[in-house]
Amino acid sequence: MSVTVITYDRDMARWEPGARERLERAAMELFVERGYEQATVTEIAGRAGLTQRTFFRYFADKREVLFSGGPALQELMVTAVAAAPQSAAAIDAVGAALAVAGDLIQQRRDYSRQRQAIIAAHPELQERELIKLATLAAAIGGALRGRGVTEPAASLAAEAGVAVFRIAIERWHEQENRQRDLPDLIRDSLDQLRAVTGGR
Amino acid sequence: MSVTVITYDRDMARWEPGARERLERAAMELFVERGYEQATVTEIAGRAGLTQRTFFRYFADKREVLFSGGPALQELMVTAVAAAPQSAAAIDAVGAALAVAGDLIQQRRDYSRQRQAIIAAHPELQERELIKLATLAAAIGGALRGRGVTEPAASLAAEAGVAVFRIAIERWHEQENRQRDLPDLIRDSLDQLRAVTGGR
Repeated sequence: MSVTVITYDRDMARWEPGARERLERAAMELFVERGYEQATVTEIAGRAGLTQRTFFRYFADKREVLFSGGPALQELMVTAVAAAPQSAAAIDAVGAALAVAGDLIQQRRDYSRQRQAIIAAHPELQERELIKLATLAAAIGGALRGRGVTEPAASLAAEAGVAVFRIAIERWHEQENRQRDLPDLIRDSLDQLRAVTGGR
Repeated sequence: MSVTVITYDRDMARWEPGARERLERAAMELFVERGYEQATVTEIAGRAGLTQRTFFRYFADKREVLFSGGPALQELMVTAVAAAPQSAAAIDAVGAALAVAGDLIQQRRDYSRQRQAIIAAHPELQERELIKLATLAAAIGGALRGRGVTEPAASLAAEAGVAVFRIAIERWHEQENRQRDLPDLIRDSLDQLRAVTGGR
């Protein structure tokens, strides 16, 4: 079974180098040019110089192109939580994960901004975003439990961290001049959460 | 236009006293007895002694029966945020809203437990729950801004509060013996959030 899978991946890699990235780029170009609803899978594949069939090897549907980075980001964040110093408090382990994610997304600023605008305009994409963020929070909560953090502290720290992440990304995109970068806004939002919750 | 609406509401009230509550009760009975998927709108209406047409006056679809309490709960919580003493910190105004919601849900413990079990078993219901909770957080954030709380503190306090609310309800339902009531678990979860985020 695993041999079959490996062969299949090799074939894909040989036939279509960088297919996933080409499809993502083509999709975003078309979403921006023609609007998310208007762009079809056939057009996206055509723009990427690939077939519709290849598109569906990588993505279940058109929506999923906008969420394809999610699993890798989640894995990075879970790894960062696990790798934080054993002495780190739960919220600081979460902060380390947010910092890693912030660095990565900062490098794809224009893509992130375009993606955010499309999601904001489509309720069904907002739903999927909420589900992905809930999954991310659950994964981070699991990683905290793996560090020995008990419930409900693990879930609370994870949910609060994901709220900070989401709100920091919104602040980042809302800036007129982009004077502050995402890692900075994540740190600031986490500090503000501390101030808000600890402030009495 | 508003005259028409008022007449319509009056007619409904005269024709079907307590129709909404009867439909909710009938729906939950059927969901528990036969499973959520199997129960049809026709059966729910029949069990409540009403017509399918009456059902659709109150609810857009079968799913919506499980979320019909949401808008009233949200309004109560928003009112509680606005009514908190002017000197109260943002998180304490949110805590007041959670306390009001906790008291109300505590009185419908069995309904809440059955509802939670059905939602947990159906991804499409979890999606709707996530959307409703995101809407609730946005409304609470708006109420905090109405008190003069600035962003991102308002959104952070609101999101953190809704996370506390959700996690406290989960803890409440997970208890073997129900030894702690929901308002108590909400207070405790809020304290644990403070400890988690303020703990350095």
